[in-house]
This record gives sequence, structure tokens and C-alpha cells, in this order.
Amino acid sequence: MREIESIKECGGYLNRYTHASAVCHCDMTFSVYLPPQARDDKVPALYWLSGLTCTDDNARTKGGFQRFAARHGIAIVFPDTSPRGDDVADEPERYDLGQAAGFYVNATQNPWTPHYAMFDYVTRELPALLESELPLIPGIKSITGHSMGGHGALICALKLPGEYRSVSAFAPIANPVSCPWGEGCFGAYLGDDRSAWEAWDASCLVASGARVDDILVDQGDADEFLHDGQLLPDHFQTACDAAGQSLTLRMQPGYDHSYHFISTFIEDHFEYHARYLK
Amino acid sequence: MREIESIKECGGYLNRYTHASAVCHCDMTFSVYLPPQARDDKVPALYWLSGLTCTDDNARTKGGFQRFAARHGIAIVFPDTSPRGDDVADEPERYDLGQAAGFYVNATQNPWTPHYAMFDYVTRELPALLESELPLIPGIKSITGHSMGGHGALICALKLPGEYRSVSAFAPIANPVSCPWGEGCFGAYLGDDRSAWEAWDASCLVASGARVDDILVDQGDADEFLHDGQLLPDHFQTACDAAGQSLTLRMQPGYDHSYHFISTFIEDHFEYHARYLK
Repeated sequence: MREIESIKECGGYLNRYTHASAVCHCDMTFSVYLPPQARDDKVPALYWLSGLTCTDDNARTKGGFQRFAARHGIAIVFPDTSPRGDDVADEPERYDLGQAAGFYVNATQNPWTPHYAMFDYVTRELPALLESELPLIPGIKSITGHSMGGHGALICALKLPGEYRSVSAFAPIANPVSCPWGEGCFGAYLGDDRSAWEAWDASCLVASGARVDDILVDQGDADEFLHDGQLLPDHFQTACDAAGQSLTLRMQPGYDHSYHFISTFIEDHFEYHARYLK
Repeated sequence: MREIESIKECGGYLNRYTHASAVCHCDMTFSVYLPPQARDDKVPALYWLSGLTCTDDNARTKGGFQRFAARHGIAIVFPDTSPRGDDVADEPERYDLGQAAGFYVNATQNPWTPHYAMFDYVTRELPALLESELPLIPGIKSITGHSMGGHGALICALKLPGEYRSVSAFAPIANPVSCPWGEGCFGAYLGDDRSAWEAWDASCLVASGARVDDILVDQGDADEFLHDGQLLPDHFQTACDAAGQSLTLRMQPGYDHSYHFISTFIEDHFEYHARYLK
């Protein structure tokens, strides 16, 4: 991996890197915030998965995360949201399919299969790379994200028990098999057999027995995509209740889907993850 | 004034407005963050003046200010950086002159005079409007800003003694008559007579007797524009030392000119201004 930018913030460094991804078969760009504590010691990592249309830049610029990462001595990893490049399949006229919309699954359908392996990328390739190249404590990591990335965080934790110390999400797409965004991407990436989709859906995973210690979800009740039926936190709550999965779902009155919502509650999420990472 | 957007953040509301400016002779857009305390009481205001290329959106999105405004019960006013519109003079191929580069002066030269009156706009028209329309305590305000806006904050406070409770700046253009950005804008807006420029230059104002109680300035020592000779904080320090003007100039090792620098130190600036505003 090659460092292409380094900016000092809150006593640490916000770095951007590029590398040739073996699982996505393309060059990938990502950012890592290394808190000041990483100068002298290895630190745990919190993975942030961003939503539709984002790159690694949105959260690092708009989220206000670095202050809390520095306070708690936690690195933040900001992966990209899909494979990228001229030879990577895309639907340029759509924001919700193709590049910037990888949905954190491993595609099984052409033309997506050669590159769209974001689940393996964020859960296996990227942690292995970073734990070998940066001052991160091997294996000590948690995960969170927003919208499509909230979905990603939930399925990463639920599909890989024990891999993440803790998981949280902001306005996640919590039951993608039942919403337009999820149906569009899962149909394209995973094919017409809807039963194959359930292995990539947080609500279905909980219903079929997947478990983590606890889950924290914040959801604004003025979120336009909540009202459009894209997020479905009630389906996830129902699945968790039926299965006995611990879930703290906080409906936040008046908040929308933007980074202004995320920046309001990110301090709570860092405190939540810090308890598990220390 | 007309509200065109309202987003909940940190318990308060980040609102955007548009109005017909009498001094700029065009429609102007600005944002105000009203902290939760403004629901029940009038609150003091901190004016934020942004830098070259910015609109009212940069700081409200990237600065992480709202958390501290909510903590201290202070409203933040984010004006635009120049008059705007198709009939407003501009140099579209330049980022450092014309629209988005108003430099917080009142232009005396054509074609700039009809619209470029940003000093009167941010110090008189906008406060009068906001104190009549929003829950702000009349006359209780402070000012800060970044780069061109740091210059703006310093001259607003120095030219209008008693108008602002306190003033601070991030990487201000501290001696514009002596740097390329300032020479370009002052020559265009104020004409060839350099003696007329000094009334709009913080270092010259201090040298000629202008005084405020105290000034806080943060400056990154890895700031490319510092090294290009655009900012000249040493000139400002020399002027303040010679004149007996209190100045706390903090050279911050390793920090650049970006909002990652600002977000690191904005908490300190809110604490500084809160002491004067309460």
C-alpha cells in the first residue's frame, strides 16, 4: 500500500492510501485516522462503512469522528464503498447500483463478479493489510456505518461471530431484501433467487440464528429514506425481539439522514465501541 | 429573509436563509445554527467568516462547530464570502478575485462597487436583520474566521471597537497589503492608491492605533500558504508587540490550512469566545 496524503488532525494523522486489491481486482483507495496514541503503541480499530454515493472522504470530512478517536485512542478505517475504475462494471446513470454502491456483498453474477467482493474486502483483505502495515492491534476491531454502510456493519458482525468486538449503525438499511435499494442491488449482484439474498440481510440473519453480544442503532425519525421504506428498522427490531438478540434502537426525534445526524451521535458510538475495544 | 433549509443537529437547528441584501444589491444566502438553548431564550452569536472559494456551507459541514455551539448556547452565523449572481462582477477563471473572494471590504472601484460591500454586509446589515428575526441577544456577538475570513474577523473587530465582545482567527491573511492575495483583491476593489488599503489590513490597523481587548490566532506551521507568504502572522505579531496589543498567536506544529486544522482547535475558540459572550 502507498500513502498518498497525510493530514494532521486532533494530534494524530488522517492518512489516505492506495493499493492493488486482490479480491476486488482493481486499485482501491481508503483512509485511516491514526490517533496520537498510535505513535507509541498499537491501537484498536473502528471500521466505518459509508453509504451510497460516498467515497472514503465523506465521513472523514463531515463526521467529526477524529476528535473522539483521539480521545479514546482508536484508529478509524474508512474504506471506499465499491471497487472503482474504467474496467469495473458500473451503471453510471444510477446512484444506487454499481460504483459507489457495492452494498458490502460478494457478487455472484456477471458483470459484477470479477470486482464486486466488498464483503471479503472489508472483512478480510483490508484488516489483514492494515494489521501488517500500521500500528493496529491484530484482531481487535469493531465496526459501524451509515445507511448502506450500516447494513454493511450489521452483516459483517452477524456473519462473522467473534470477529468484531462490537457493532453499531446509523440509519442502516436493516432489511434490504424488502426495500427497493436492496432489491435492486441484490438482484443485480446475487441473482434472481431471493433465498440467496437472505445471507446478506441483517434481519434475515438474526431470524436464522446469527447472534452478536449487543447492537446499537441510531435512526432519525425525520429521515426521508425511513419514510420511503428503504431502512425498515422496525423489521430489524421485530427480528431481534423474536430471536432474543439484544438491540438498542434509538429513534431520534427530528433528525434526518445526513451527516449532521451522524455528527450529533458519533460521540455516543465511540463511547460504546471503546468499552468493547479496551 | 426566507428559510430554505432546516436540519436538526446537536439538539438545535442548522438553518439556511436567503434574502435581498440592500448593501450588496443582490440576493444573499447564509446559514445560522441555533443551539437548543435558543428555543426558550435569546442567545449570543458567533460570526464565522469563511475563506476563499467557500460559501456558507463549508464550515457548517466540515468544521464540527455545532457540537460546541450547543454546549455553550451560542448561535453561529455563517455568511457567504461575496455577493453572488449573474449580474455581479466576477473573474470566473480566478479563485482569488470576484465571487467567493469578497475579502470583507467595501469596494470603491468599478466594476465592483455596486455589489462588493461585504464589510457593511457582515458587520451591519446581517446582524441587524438577524437580531430582529431570530432569537439572538441584540449586540452580543463575537467574530472569528479562516484565512480570508480570519482577515475579515480581525478587521471587523479592529475597525469597530466595542462592536464585538471578542475576536479570534484561524490562519488569517494577517497583512494583506503585503501578500499576493491581498494585493490582487485590494488593487481591484480599492484602487491603485496603496494608502487606501491600510484601513482594511489588520497589521496596519494595529500599527495605526486600533485596539481590542485580546486576540487569539491559531496558525499551522505546515500550512502551504504560510510558506507561500500569503498569511504573514509574523508581521501581525510584530505590529501587535510594537503597539502593545494583546495577541495570543499559537503556532501549531504539523497542521495545514484545511478544515482538519480548524476542527482540531475550534473547541478552544468556542471556549475563548464563550468567556466574553456570557
